[in-house]
Amino acid sequence: MGKSVGIVESKIFHCKDELALVCGKKLSEFDLIYETYGKLNKNKTNAIFIPHALSGNHHIAGKYHKNDKYSGWWDNMVGPAKPIDTNKYFVIGINNLGGNDGSTSAKSINPKTKKVWGSSFPILTVKDWVASQKKLINSLGIEKLYAIVGGSLGGMQAMQWSIDFPDAVEKILCIAAAPSLTAQNIAFNEVARQAILQDDEFYKGNFYEQKTKPKKGLRIARMLGHITYLSNDSMDKKFGRKLIQGKYNYNFQQNYEIESYLNYQGDKFAMTFDANTYLRMTKALDYFDLEKNFKNKLSKVFAKIKAKYLVVSFSSDWRFPPSRSKEIVKALLDNNINVTYAEIEAETGHDAFLLESEHYHNTVRNYLRS
Amino acid sequence: MGKSVGIVESKIFHCKDELALVCGKKLSEFDLIYETYGKLNKNKTNAIFIPHALSGNHHIAGKYHKNDKYSGWWDNMVGPAKPIDTNKYFVIGINNLGGNDGSTSAKSINPKTKKVWGSSFPILTVKDWVASQKKLINSLGIEKLYAIVGGSLGGMQAMQWSIDFPDAVEKILCIAAAPSLTAQNIAFNEVARQAILQDDEFYKGNFYEQKTKPKKGLRIARMLGHITYLSNDSMDKKFGRKLIQGKYNYNFQQNYEIESYLNYQGDKFAMTFDANTYLRMTKALDYFDLEKNFKNKLSKVFAKIKAKYLVVSFSSDWRFPPSRSKEIVKALLDNNINVTYAEIEAETGHDAFLLESEHYHNTVRNYLRS
Repeated sequence: MGKSVGIVESKIFHCKDELALVCGKKLSEFDLIYETYGKLNKNKTNAIFIPHALSGNHHIAGKYHKNDKYSGWWDNMVGPAKPIDTNKYFVIGINNLGGNDGSTSAKSINPKTKKVWGSSFPILTVKDWVASQKKLINSLGIEKLYAIVGGSLGGMQAMQWSIDFPDAVEKILCIAAAPSLTAQNIAFNEVARQAILQDDEFYKGNFYEQKTKPKKGLRIARMLGHITYLSNDSMDKKFGRKLIQGKYNYNFQQNYEIESYLNYQGDKFAMTFDANTYLRMTKALDYFDLEKNFKNKLSKVFAKIKAKYLVVSFSSDWRFPPSRSKEIVKALLDNNINVTYAEIEAETGHDAFLLESEHYHNTVRNYLRS
Repeated sequence: MGKSVGIVESKIFHCKDELALVCGKKLSEFDLIYETYGKLNKNKTNAIFIPHALSGNHHIAGKYHKNDKYSGWWDNMVGPAKPIDTNKYFVIGINNLGGNDGSTSAKSINPKTKKVWGSSFPILTVKDWVASQKKLINSLGIEKLYAIVGGSLGGMQAMQWSIDFPDAVEKILCIAAAPSLTAQNIAFNEVARQAILQDDEFYKGNFYEQKTKPKKGLRIARMLGHITYLSNDSMDKKFGRKLIQGKYNYNFQQNYEIESYLNYQGDKFAMTFDANTYLRMTKALDYFDLEKNFKNKLSKVFAKIKAKYLVVSFSSDWRFPPSRSKEIVKALLDNNINVTYAEIEAETGHDAFLLESEHYHNTVRNYLRS
């Protein structure tokens, strides 16, 4: 369904405005790397912003060159005649502050010290990201986004936008998200962080100077993460108890296909992902808590928003299950906000938000059209 | 309810019979450390064996001295007037081969080489454990156990006993177990193993010579394990999003109470548990597969057993959920075996099998009496 956006390129937005962060620190200036697909119309009313999840970035669709092996991370969703149709909409992807792929992060030079930030790079929150994203959207001359479409941590950013800038967005598509993390969610994040923090190659976050990186910790973090992205049923169907060579090896080499899959995913991630980014992304997740400043009353959080909402959950998602999406729906309804809710039957767990399914894609397509 | 068995002591059973293992290796001789509580009756018909789960051992009940801070791991279940009543029954606990606490293991001296086994200690299976346990039970002059009561990995051993020695046990109490691990179960085990295997202090399993141990890996393994022993709901109730000092710290120190709990559990475990034992216990779990030699037909597995069964599951256990226990029940019923099934309402997850609850304890008590 639909075509690719084709060959794309990234741009850098350099912001000279000081950004005061929730943690109390400030960024005197910063870069955001971003991509756009489709054309902004004359009245600038057709822009859709897609914030990314934990390990995503600004490269949502298309390829960088003809022989590029991979397309952007949501290429099945964004493109000409795709659910987020770039024939109609002007789509914007941004790599978040602290991210891995070109925005200002722990890998960057601190303009004050002229040295790499490393461990001194601040822990940003979803609210900080939204504030920085707004600067970029403003720089494009867009006063009001037609929509923000976010899955998982991206859905949290979408919600925060509607709260912090109620006049700046018309529709929120909040997919496979939650109003906050549970103790179990935080627990998984903490195990992943500990694996990185205690890696000898982490050097308290200043591993760049040592020309190394905490690959072992990153491997464990990613392997663990993957278990929470998949459902028990989908793992059983895909891997079950299948043995790589059909028999037990009675040693600690990979023996089951699921072991091989996880180790492969861990190795790949450890080669490419930045440990300081991973740590900070998980903290942004942990700290995201819509109710915190509203006496734990979620319905009060949405009192002043103006956007319409589509909330989407997936039946087998145990990271952010349908019950968490329903909390959001209920709080929106308490405020008489126009909300549509879709619980998609899917056995692929949390990852379902990235996968193609007719019901899901039609839900997004139709909501944007409506 | 009930009293303590009081001060107890361990004994060593030294077996000079060669034990041929499933992996193809042999143990020319071995030690099993064990404890007993209550008195064996004249006809030797009142013996109950309790195999342990992943991190358990032979010390089930009582204390080693008056000022001992901790009792055995199932002290709430075993003792005078307790559900497994030591006024009536003679109860036996054994530390499995490869275990941590005094039985022959990777820490022991290989009698052939006169050196510590270390990495060369074999990977044992549930079937091997059962064979070695039978030798000890025989040495006590017991031809037929009145019951075997096992939770989790202990339940797997109980089932294996009824299959391998159908005349040697009257009642099986199989609690919070499964006929095999799912892909997700194996995945969690593999992440834990990788954390240990890649720890620089592991030295390929020969860390004893280096006078060190892979504490970092063990910490991660235990933290992760704990998440799977608890339920999402019980974690939310006990910890929720509670902050240790009431506020975000914007660094990577422990900030939430759940983080503090997990790190504490990890540290404690890393101090005391042996990494080679942990690796081998998880492999025994992965390799346990009742159906494997029966063309994946669980009902055929139980064709020749003679024991009666009580199968117990806990509603919030997502490690070995009620559906897995029901597979066992169904396969037993297919063979017209006398089986009682109890699904206990509990919100404490897999750990519920170790905790006191009236319905659960009465179920065990009454089944043993019946």
